[in-house]
Amino acid sequence: MQTVDLNSDMGEGFGPWTIGDGVDAAIMPLISSANIATGFHAGDPSIMRRTVELALEHGVGIGAHPGFRDLVGFGRRHINAPAAELVNDMLYQLGALREFARLQGASLQHIKPHGALYMHLARDEEVAREFVATLQRLDPQLALFCMDGSATWRAAQELGQPVVREFYADRDYDRSGSIVFIRRVRALDPQEVAARVLRACQEGRVRTVEGEDIAIAFDSICIHSDTPGALALVEATRAALLGAGIRIEAPR
Amino acid sequence: MQTVDLNSDMGEGFGPWTIGDGVDAAIMPLISSANIATGFHAGDPSIMRRTVELALEHGVGIGAHPGFRDLVGFGRRHINAPAAELVNDMLYQLGALREFARLQGASLQHIKPHGALYMHLARDEEVAREFVATLQRLDPQLALFCMDGSATWRAAQELGQPVVREFYADRDYDRSGSIVFIRRVRALDPQEVAARVLRACQEGRVRTVEGEDIAIAFDSICIHSDTPGALALVEATRAALLGAGIRIEAPR
Amino acid sequence: MQTVDLNSDMGEGFGPWTIGDGVDAAIMPLISSANIATGFHAGDPSIMRRTVELALEHGVGIGAHPGFRDLVGFGRRHINAPAAELVNDMLYQLGALREFARLQGASLQHIKPHGALYMHLARDEEVAREFVATLQRLDPQLALFCMDGSATWRAAQELGQPVVREFYADRDYDRSGSIVFIRRVRALDPQEVAARVLRACQEGRVRTVEGEDIAIAFDSICIHSDTPGALALVEATRAALLGAGIRIEAPR
Amino acid sequence: MQTVDLNSDMGEGFGPWTIGDGVDAAIMPLISSANIATGFHAGDPSIMRRTVELALEHGVGIGAHPGFRDLVGFGRRHINAPAAELVNDMLYQLGALREFARLQGASLQHIKPHGALYMHLARDEEVAREFVATLQRLDPQLALFCMDGSATWRAAQELGQPVVREFYADRDYDRSGSIVFIRRVRALDPQEVAARVLRACQEGRVRTVEGEDIAIAFDSICIHSDTPGALALVEATRAALLGAGIRIEAPR
Repeated sequence: MQTVDLNSDMGEGFGPWTIGDGVDAAIMPLISSANIATGFHAGDPSIMRRTVELALEHGVGIGAHPGFRDLVGFGRRHINAPAAELVNDMLYQLGALREFARLQGASLQHIKPHGALYMHLARDEEVAREFVATLQRLDPQLALFCMDGSATWRAAQELGQPVVREFYADRDYDRSGSIVFIRRVRALDPQEVAARVLRACQEGRVRTVEGEDIAIAFDSICIHSDTPGALALVEATRAALLGAGIRIEAPR
Repeated sequence: MQTVDLNSDMGEGFGPWTIGDGVDAAIMPLISSANIATGFHAGDPSIMRRTVELALEHGVGIGAHPGFRDLVGFGRRHINAPAAELVNDMLYQLGALREFARLQGASLQHIKPHGALYMHLARDEEVAREFVATLQRLDPQLALFCMDGSATWRAAQELGQPVVREFYADRDYDRSGSIVFIRRVRALDPQEVAARVLRACQEGRVRTVEGEDIAIAFDSICIHSDTPGALALVEATRAALLGAGIRIEAPR
Repeated sequence: MQTVDLNSDMGEGFGPWTIGDGVDAAIMPLISSANIATGFHAGDPSIMRRTVELALEHGVGIGAHPGFRDLVGFGRRHINAPAAELVNDMLYQLGALREFARLQGASLQHIKPHGALYMHLARDEEVAREFVATLQRLDPQLALFCMDGSATWRAAQELGQPVVREFYADRDYDRSGSIVFIRRVRALDPQEVAARVLRACQEGRVRTVEGEDIAIAFDSICIHSDTPGALALVEATRAALLGAGIRIEAPR
Repeated sequence: MQTVDLNSDMGEGFGPWTIGDGVDAAIMPLISSANIATGFHAGDPSIMRRTVELALEHGVGIGAHPGFRDLVGFGRRHINAPAAELVNDMLYQLGALREFARLQGASLQHIKPHGALYMHLARDEEVAREFVATLQRLDPQLALFCMDGSATWRAAQELGQPVVREFYADRDYDRSGSIVFIRRVRALDPQEVAARVLRACQEGRVRTVEGEDIAIAFDSICIHSDTPGALALVEATRAALLGAGIRIEAPR
């Protein structure tokens, strides 16, 4: 691997509140793609505008990060809604962010559903297909962030939507290749995370919670900005990648 | 007057609820411009999508109808927020609707702020100018619905944003040319409303609550779909206009 | 059966919106228990206050009707939340309604979770037990509306919370004795509904969607006020019961 | 002054977010009255429950801290709503908190409206009177936190509701005795704040932004927990008071 994308969730405050360590401004210069919260799980219009501006200042690719309509649960609780409703909820949020990009004369690079919605799309064929088919009508060049082999990925492959496959630096994987989903994340050791990422980039393998190695294929590394100590994780990962001669660049 | 626009607020339900008599589908074929609620005072993504589709079926011009973030107050309560926040709130909502138009291969015709936000922009120079200046950067051809002589209208004239001036068929005017703002509207007589509109079109005059006539200049007639008996008002008004040889057409 | 309770959901508007046919004022005099929406799926403080007053005018028992925090989905979408969170959400809503009762010098008669939350409690032992155990600490005399044999009912039996078992007049049952859950309800024939209720009261049996009879035990009949034509259903049911000499009375 | 109350806003997070420095657990043991956010401007049911428990552990008086329905604006934006609506919004929130106190076998000590709602009640006779009259019906012993001479205070004096008058340690006063209302607060010097409080307690005077002294009468000192460095302000103030022999105790 010569280059890899590094993405993080940005703008996940709401009104008076900031998330995690409140370090968006410190993380933004270090990443190549920003998933910007679009108001349903986090983010408000003024935060979205500032975050788009911040991304553009640092040449970071802008992506919409739509979630379930669930501020109190931060989009980490599954809501049992029909596929059509969920797709409409994502379009609404996508358009809202696109308007702030348009105001700056910029385009959206990607879309990445958030939290429980990301996981729902990864597992549910119906909603994954309806979502991807809608993106095809709407914006067939918009990159869709997803996990290799997920329902989202399969629908995108089949229908022709460009994908960016992710590796989760700050989440555990299990034997099936799924990430182990948790509502609150513990603090992690930056050097361990960086070493894990570097190994994934160089060897295409990751150690699972069961203690085995599995193969992993990806185009982008995700580090969540609300993980405690997120800035240190991003810094250590970036240093490890650059030290190994791997450039951090937005997809394509 | 040979032609006039006829606009109404559409899609002002939310989730399980419909507004007023729930007659969007009956009113849409009768009007030429639809102000589609964009989620903050009413409207949800699925309603927005259906309402955009309904407008397009009937060749009706599509406009964003952003409001204060106030579902419980239906956007009819003033919220004391900084101009920048309000402009960002409107951009968010505008983009959300634009995405549903884009999905149908359609463009937005106009934007019309809702309720207390419309009145706030009509009176407050600072927010009116910041809003219009932002529209100039974003979409200089988007028509802005407003009242003749309002702060919104003045800012648009000065900065070059196209405007569509409104006449409110179902609201009273006072001597100053302002509409008398009320939270809940009483039922009106369709023939009286139609006669008032026709006179305004033909003579450019309206009787105020003080009992005097004032001059009124406008390009579009607004009938609120949540006024009780709204469908009958639209039907009577349409019949009166057509009977007098005035065509109902979207602006430009 | 000499007497039976008749309950309906009341106050399920929000801000400018009313639900269904908007006939709370017509239904209230006909029922004996009102489940008053408490703001999370429907209902706002001003509606709650008016609905409590309306219930008291007609001597109707007042119950809290808490739902998932989901206005747009009207509490009919399951949200995957921890038991403790859901219990706290219900306490919040219960207390809010209790305050409006207190203002009128009245007490709460019961609590009945709404929609998807009702069904979740009926199936999930953990949340049912945590909820009932909390009620025991809080208000051990508060009647809990539930279905015979549900997890809610079992927890209440075990821990000693008084229960009122419901029969759903406007929902279909399946062979297992569960109601067939749907998001939008079709119009029903009042005479059929009334006959079905009367048979359930007199014979303790109901015909399932599979075409068989099952035994049904209950203390209260529920008719949803947002079912289209709800008023006619309540009127026909009431007439059938009174005609057969069965009195409609609040529990105990 | 032998004793004084020391109050702070507690539980002003929401869902995944904490406010300010997130130091509720550190501040609670140092104060005598906690104003607990009740969900409209901040606070969610689970945070409310934990905050009530935390207050009781430290023997701190529990008060409801209702705000405008405005999460994104943190209740610091005025909303132009009828008095009856605002009173009902406050009752709703009051009841919600009372339920969590009831669960612990505790009673509420006080109510203190938040932010723009506090200021609105301080200025508007109609809403102040309607609110106090409603408290009289509901809970005539509940202490109402307010500013000396405000409309709230006058209504309480007239109608007989007990009051606790506040001194704002971390806000500036102007010549009229009003606090200078701001949306975001700068960091303050703990020693200066402590000295200002001590002088207010001992001399009954405070220096205004215009540079003059005015007389100030109060029973409680408020330090906002979302002021940056709030913990240090509380510690310094507490140390200064105790050092001068003034005990910190809940009212009455």
